[in-house]
Amino acid sequence: MKRKITLKQIARELEVSISTVSKALRNSPEISEDTKQKVQAFAKLYNYRPNNIALSLKNRKTNTIGIIIPEIVHHFFSKVIRGVELVANKRGYNVIIGLSNESFSKEVINMEMLANGSIDGFIISISKETQQLQDYHHFNETMSQGMPIVMFDRVVSDIKCDKVIVDDLNGAKNAVEKLIANGCKSIALITTKDYVSVGKLRTQGYLEALENYKIQPKAELILKIDDTLDYETHLEALEDEIEQLFKSNRHIDGIFAVNELYALTAMKVARKLGLEIPKDLQVIGFTDGVLSKHSTPGLTTVSQHAQQMGERAADLLIDKLENKIETEEEEFQTIVIETNLVERESTK
Amino acid sequence: MKRKITLKQIARELEVSISTVSKALRNSPEISEDTKQKVQAFAKLYNYRPNNIALSLKNRKTNTIGIIIPEIVHHFFSKVIRGVELVANKRGYNVIIGLSNESFSKEVINMEMLANGSIDGFIISISKETQQLQDYHHFNETMSQGMPIVMFDRVVSDIKCDKVIVDDLNGAKNAVEKLIANGCKSIALITTKDYVSVGKLRTQGYLEALENYKIQPKAELILKIDDTLDYETHLEALEDEIEQLFKSNRHIDGIFAVNELYALTAMKVARKLGLEIPKDLQVIGFTDGVLSKHSTPGLTTVSQHAQQMGERAADLLIDKLENKIETEEEEFQTIVIETNLVERESTK
Repeated sequence: MKRKITLKQIARELEVSISTVSKALRNSPEISEDTKQKVQAFAKLYNYRPNNIALSLKNRKTNTIGIIIPEIVHHFFSKVIRGVELVANKRGYNVIIGLSNESFSKEVINMEMLANGSIDGFIISISKETQQLQDYHHFNETMSQGMPIVMFDRVVSDIKCDKVIVDDLNGAKNAVEKLIANGCKSIALITTKDYVSVGKLRTQGYLEALENYKIQPKAELILKIDDTLDYETHLEALEDEIEQLFKSNRHIDGIFAVNELYALTAMKVARKLGLEIPKDLQVIGFTDGVLSKHSTPGLTTVSQHAQQMGERAADLLIDKLENKIETEEEEFQTIVIETNLVERESTK
Repeated sequence: MKRKITLKQIARELEVSISTVSKALRNSPEISEDTKQKVQAFAKLYNYRPNNIALSLKNRKTNTIGIIIPEIVHHFFSKVIRGVELVANKRGYNVIIGLSNESFSKEVINMEMLANGSIDGFIISISKETQQLQDYHHFNETMSQGMPIVMFDRVVSDIKCDKVIVDDLNGAKNAVEKLIANGCKSIALITTKDYVSVGKLRTQGYLEALENYKIQPKAELILKIDDTLDYETHLEALEDEIEQLFKSNRHIDGIFAVNELYALTAMKVARKLGLEIPKDLQVIGFTDGVLSKHSTPGLTTVSQHAQQMGERAADLLIDKLENKIETEEEEFQTIVIETNLVERESTK
């Protein structure tokens, strides 16, 4: 049996991107005729079969769910996985996990690999690079071949599939309103660059809360962190930038951070600068992870109910797998998980 | 094409364990003739092919590594995965992950699923239940069919395969000797039940350190936690048991805990009881995770170099995959990763 060639190998061989190969094989008008001919000839020569997903689907059911997540070191994603596992096990499904490492091409490769007969459907949170590139052809392709996808947390509004999201905007808004109600006059936001959908929504929630209370937002109080760096470099840069933020804005008395790590780092830097928490500075983070619970002082956070997200996503996917109705127009659901504020010692 | 039947389905159908099915198919003397006949007849009827691993191996190389770990919520395992990913990506391999959830049958099912043509070899840390049952047939079977396994951290000494382990005994011994050198007179140990190999070795290190300093070990200072409970229940029980330990032994001035969670919980309980760290009580944990770094006071820990373990395991596996020498006697390596003590504020 001849070894099956993959998208990745074609891309490497022809020195083009995986996305280009995939589009060329679908005869996309975005790709030049010359490239299309080259890719298609190569694929034919090596017997590449783009429809392997559909083929394998017709042949067998694996009772396995594939999860693709950007990274594993985040407690949030591990809790989502636990939720998926719980429901999957209860309903007789197994789970396997692939990591995109925030990379577009790894996301594509992982999906291709798992879709190739190993699983029945996907639960996905998309990579930062995919969000930046806005290239979603691999999701559409997978679904057009009959394999359902449920997206969670980082979703794409343009893609028609089931989704489980957190109410990021209102979660952030409530947190900032809590800080205002607690007497904070100068609230800084520590967030990510805008291409991360959840960072963007949480930033919007911050702005809406200020607006509700007729507080003028100030650009110098909004710190947007470049989180594409590796973890250690990122952590160091983070400390420096937050220290700079405090030093340039001595009046800051409240911090809303879009994740736990940013919030804890802010507390650490604040303590270093002699600020008392929550007396001089109140801090709220997002994501109720293990760090928030064990930090001193305990961090007040917007809980995302990660495990519940995983459970709901698994139920949506398995429902779809087991009740396949062959209609022209498929219906998709978006489940919004409400957040709640877990109050600890970092706020008054 | 007829759907391929799995070990799990045969077991469910005949109401026996997966292990029994597997052994019956190998004609093991441990299984009664009656059961063997039943299983073998059923397997034949449904066209079960136990040699699917070997078959698929001969046909193709997937350039994918399968990782089987007991759970995902431990920072240790996520850092090992990062190490595997780093090396795998550099050497042109992809990684997929299955979770055993500390369950023997899930470990077997995951291995069967991934071995079935999806991957080239395994990197495994075995489940607690497998350690308790001491049933290792699935590892031996996988290897006898030509698919290499590298075990890390929780390994089985009886099984001939490449291994990457931490020097648990000396790591623990050094930690306890540090406490003694720092003036601790009454050092308690918080560990797991003995069937967990690493817990056992760390307990042994504790005892050897005491012996070196002619300190008589006291049974009442050794707390063995039942960690088979679910996370939340486990956490509550842990707090109660540690509180009891302190209350019954007022003179405790040092704690060595075999993991980070136990150490941090001990610090939390100690603070509640009015003990000052490190003045009244010095604490050292094992596993240099994210909690130790971010806790207040920072926790002194024995660093396991989890990422390095993952890197070495991946190198061992890929070396084996790429340099397959067909000799009668295979050679296996055990790489021992030395620990080192990361000193923070929980010790003097």
